[in-house]
Amino acid sequence: MGCAPMGHILYDELMRYNPKNPYWFNRDRFVLSAGHGCMLQYALLHLAGYDSIKEEDLKGFRQWGSKTPGHPENFETPGVEVTTGPLGQGIANAVGLALAEKHLAARFNKPDSEIVDHYTYVILGDGCQMEGIANEACSLAGHWGLGKLIAFYDDNHISIDGDTEIAFTESVDTRFEGLGWHVIWVKNGNTGYDEIRAAIKEAKTVKDKPTLIKVTTTIGYGSPNKANSYSVHGSALGAKEVDATRKNLGWPYEPFHVPEDVKKHWSRHVPEGAALEAEWNAKFAEYEKKYKEDAAELKSIISGELPAGWEKALPTYTPESPADATRNLSQQCLNALAKVLPGFLGGSADLASSNMTLLKMFGDFQKNTPEERNLRFGVREHGMGAICNGIAHHTPGLIPYCATFFVFTDYMRAAIRISALSEAGVIYVMTHDSIGLGEDGPTHQPIEHLASFRAMPNILMLRPADGNETAGAYKVAILNRKRPSILALSRQKLSQLPGTSVEGVEKGGYIVSDNSSGNKPDVILIGTGSELEIASKAADELRKEGKAVRLVSFISWELFDEQTDAYKESVLPEAVTARVSIEAGTTFGWEKIVGTKGKAIGIDRFGASAPAGKIYKEFGITAEAVVAAAKALC
Amino acid sequence: MGCAPMGHILYDELMRYNPKNPYWFNRDRFVLSAGHGCMLQYALLHLAGYDSIKEEDLKGFRQWGSKTPGHPENFETPGVEVTTGPLGQGIANAVGLALAEKHLAARFNKPDSEIVDHYTYVILGDGCQMEGIANEACSLAGHWGLGKLIAFYDDNHISIDGDTEIAFTESVDTRFEGLGWHVIWVKNGNTGYDEIRAAIKEAKTVKDKPTLIKVTTTIGYGSPNKANSYSVHGSALGAKEVDATRKNLGWPYEPFHVPEDVKKHWSRHVPEGAALEAEWNAKFAEYEKKYKEDAAELKSIISGELPAGWEKALPTYTPESPADATRNLSQQCLNALAKVLPGFLGGSADLASSNMTLLKMFGDFQKNTPEERNLRFGVREHGMGAICNGIAHHTPGLIPYCATFFVFTDYMRAAIRISALSEAGVIYVMTHDSIGLGEDGPTHQPIEHLASFRAMPNILMLRPADGNETAGAYKVAILNRKRPSILALSRQKLSQLPGTSVEGVEKGGYIVSDNSSGNKPDVILIGTGSELEIASKAADELRKEGKAVRLVSFISWELFDEQTDAYKESVLPEAVTARVSIEAGTTFGWEKIVGTKGKAIGIDRFGASAPAGKIYKEFGITAEAVVAAAKALC
Repeated sequence: MGCAPMGHILYDELMRYNPKNPYWFNRDRFVLSAGHGCMLQYALLHLAGYDSIKEEDLKGFRQWGSKTPGHPENFETPGVEVTTGPLGQGIANAVGLALAEKHLAARFNKPDSEIVDHYTYVILGDGCQMEGIANEACSLAGHWGLGKLIAFYDDNHISIDGDTEIAFTESVDTRFEGLGWHVIWVKNGNTGYDEIRAAIKEAKTVKDKPTLIKVTTTIGYGSPNKANSYSVHGSALGAKEVDATRKNLGWPYEPFHVPEDVKKHWSRHVPEGAALEAEWNAKFAEYEKKYKEDAAELKSIISGELPAGWEKALPTYTPESPADATRNLSQQCLNALAKVLPGFLGGSADLASSNMTLLKMFGDFQKNTPEERNLRFGVREHGMGAICNGIAHHTPGLIPYCATFFVFTDYMRAAIRISALSEAGVIYVMTHDSIGLGEDGPTHQPIEHLASFRAMPNILMLRPADGNETAGAYKVAILNRKRPSILALSRQKLSQLPGTSVEGVEKGGYIVSDNSSGNKPDVILIGTGSELEIASKAADELRKEGKAVRLVSFISWELFDEQTDAYKESVLPEAVTARVSIEAGTTFGWEKIVGTKGKAIGIDRFGASAPAGKIYKEFGITAEAVVAAAKALC
Repeated sequence: MGCAPMGHILYDELMRYNPKNPYWFNRDRFVLSAGHGCMLQYALLHLAGYDSIKEEDLKGFRQWGSKTPGHPENFETPGVEVTTGPLGQGIANAVGLALAEKHLAARFNKPDSEIVDHYTYVILGDGCQMEGIANEACSLAGHWGLGKLIAFYDDNHISIDGDTEIAFTESVDTRFEGLGWHVIWVKNGNTGYDEIRAAIKEAKTVKDKPTLIKVTTTIGYGSPNKANSYSVHGSALGAKEVDATRKNLGWPYEPFHVPEDVKKHWSRHVPEGAALEAEWNAKFAEYEKKYKEDAAELKSIISGELPAGWEKALPTYTPESPADATRNLSQQCLNALAKVLPGFLGGSADLASSNMTLLKMFGDFQKNTPEERNLRFGVREHGMGAICNGIAHHTPGLIPYCATFFVFTDYMRAAIRISALSEAGVIYVMTHDSIGLGEDGPTHQPIEHLASFRAMPNILMLRPADGNETAGAYKVAILNRKRPSILALSRQKLSQLPGTSVEGVEKGGYIVSDNSSGNKPDVILIGTGSELEIASKAADELRKEGKAVRLVSFISWELFDEQTDAYKESVLPEAVTARVSIEAGTTFGWEKIVGTKGKAIGIDRFGASAPAGKIYKEFGITAEAVVAAAKALC
């Protein structure tokens, strides 16, 4: 209720949007980072004429099957740009949206045609301000000079636990000045419409810095007994107080009733929105005439349609290709894709030279070179993930990737989960994916991470074993535009294995080699990533001793789960219970694959600081261990 | 190398420590938040005379079994206070260490005896400064006025990817002023010993604010060709450049050789340290005479020995006790424990009234009331976890707990992992542990979280079903001082079940009820937390129909794993393959328990926004589903 004036000015006066096409490319973007206040956004979308929010949706607030869930969800409600609620995510998404605009504008605008030209607005509260992710993203927004990002900070001094005095006494203004933002203070946010308008006007004049408008408000403004108290933060007012509030505000209407004059006032947004889009379409037609190639490229980014034959750009390998780390093979794929995918861009959290993520034909996206495509996130993993979510949700054809060490997915897990939930096809390039990184030790060695993502819904956890599998993983990742992918990649060199393939990767698990006849191997050896090579050596050894051995690569559990029962049975026949898996990570979950009679070789402790080979040996992640386990079973 | 002057001044001139007793209670604490520079700390510990770092340890840097891993690890190397490396953790740990000092000093110091009185020093780099966790923790340090926290910011302008200009151009000074810190700039950190000394002196005069000393240095200082370049950030100089550096610095000695005059200079720290501790012991003896009770309490905090019979304080319940949410039952336990455990303290990330974590007999730990025990972390989950790690590592008898919604463990996962790795017995009170939270929707509903922690080494994931199990979970958590515990607690009311027990909890999985004779039930039903009640209802139903049904509570997989094979067989007999589990979370991992022939009922998708009962029904987390699955199996 304290944010109502900001919301009103944004949706009724300021923002350029078309209610009948929530996906119009050049619309202004709005993010409610303080997602628990979503009823305000639903009400505004309803008033503005969005089809997604009918009166019955407002009445079905937080009910099964409604378009009005307890926090804003882009995948449920057209008109909602991103998914917020977990605090700090929204402001970071907004930085991504503003980055996308600045990047596309720099690439496609011409002196005679600003074909990309919109603002990104965000409302965030004290909770968002306290979250580290917000500071990370806002530091980058300042660094990048995202002048068309305008954030309203709802300074209501109340959080769930009471007055912010108990935990939040920093000077937000000073901090944001330090972060390189332009800061404006509106002292009377409850009723100061003109002050808010003036602040926005000022913000738009500052082109080289994002603006924070601190709007001091009263939480639950209008409620005579509960305003300015933490009891209205997460709870409803209650019938009695609603009545009192209605009286206090002089609002005599029934619940959900929108008076005719209000309806009439807001009704102009439908024709105005249609006109805005039509005007832009005409402008684009002009642009297309003059700048044919640019227009085609921009169009493909807007539609998200992948260029025909794009996948042919991916490199291929043979067993004779030199052994290499999958992080290096990944860089070959990234650079190949950047040549054919116009919306492909990304970078690392200060580990580009370790993650091998630089696009060699492009420079750095920076304040004064926003047309470039290498993003430099600094050591800000969480902000990086959420910024990429914003980029992905800006326009279907933008395909962001981001990178750090696999273990540091822990720093950005909340953002990765939002990728999965909100259907953002971000590509997470996660290198140094096991004890194989060696000397940096247990703080840097992932153990439980593969399992932790296999357990997460709507995400693809991919752990390629060599060049062909890495290329396959990228093919899958690019095709999955509504599902994020995590690629776990090795620091250490791996052989190019005979039998691996892109087609195999697409099935999630597949037979790499088999010397049995029919479908009756003595034992099935299963490996992923860097351990497929180890399993392969063990298979060779066992075959020398006369065993019929099947070698299976299990690059993605999720993709395998989606195959037909017949295919699954063809790879892992029920009758063959002698199964040994090997993976340099936790064995948690592997019972599903190896069954109660099989054996999972892995690491159920933290790692150690030593050369990689030494740790592999000490931890028993070896071909010898696989051979021994296999012999014990068959 | 750029930090050597700071390190030298700290260890040779400033810090009060006893090399022969790294655990002396009143020592100054030092944290190398920029953990990749750990060789500096190892060298200083060696020079100072710590037994943990001998010459051979320095030579075994980053090798198997050495005391000198690639990043500082408290559990490997006495003299190292906390485990750092993942950036930002160290500075947040240091805030916890300084909080612990301020708290204990306020509780135990007397006008005539400052028995608790030490500083906390930390060195952090650009990487730490970029991480959101650092901003969270430093905002709290400013809010709490931790005057005895002195942080050196190694401002070397270089990160792994190159000059910090590419991603980090904010004004750190201004931001820290906004956070309520005192800020000092030492412009010549490479050789400005006197300036560093003067800055520390100034910092100590500022009693009500933490101090950031920005020390501008040159990374790799002394190396004629590689100083001030990113190539020295994470890589060794190489033999040739080491030679050139030695020449440049006029250092003619062999590697690892410490010249006699240097040895002699540093040798005083052993006797001086012993004298410092002896002096403090004498002071404590005086204190003990005058303040017997306080001394006894402080002693028990220092030793970490739990008071005899403490566990009797935990509440007990019968099936007749009123149904209640486990978050409320948890609050009863927390308040009971706070009465008997002198070092018990903690709080929530702005959700105290939802997590039910307030200690009713205590006030808030604040700048001017640091003797109190309710910590108010604000919405800063990641900082909260790392601060608790610092508190836990300060003194064995300090037992910190912290709280948020279970789903937001995603925000603090990196800190939780450090708890597990560094053996910090932090208690994570995680409420709203499933779709049972209802209307807030999928952004707030954990799905994969139980599995993700079951996969993590050295941590206890506990999901109690009722009052007795909640009390049992706290008993386990308090006893495990070198292993963190996560308690997953319900928002919704749950019945007190017949057959649950503290003793059962201690075994991880146990028989709650069984109407079979011998060890041959027709079917085993397995539940955890809020779903044990559902499994129990299904058991009743099946028993009515004449089935022999065993009901098993599976509160902690880790504890069950530690039991003898005989015990495991007594609970889950191999011969009984008809097993049905139910848990309102991912089924990932449950194959281990139910076997290939059993059935795991769970949720392998994201949640939904609706009343809890509705979601349970729509998702099939019901007694009817358990009954149907059981009938299909037996």
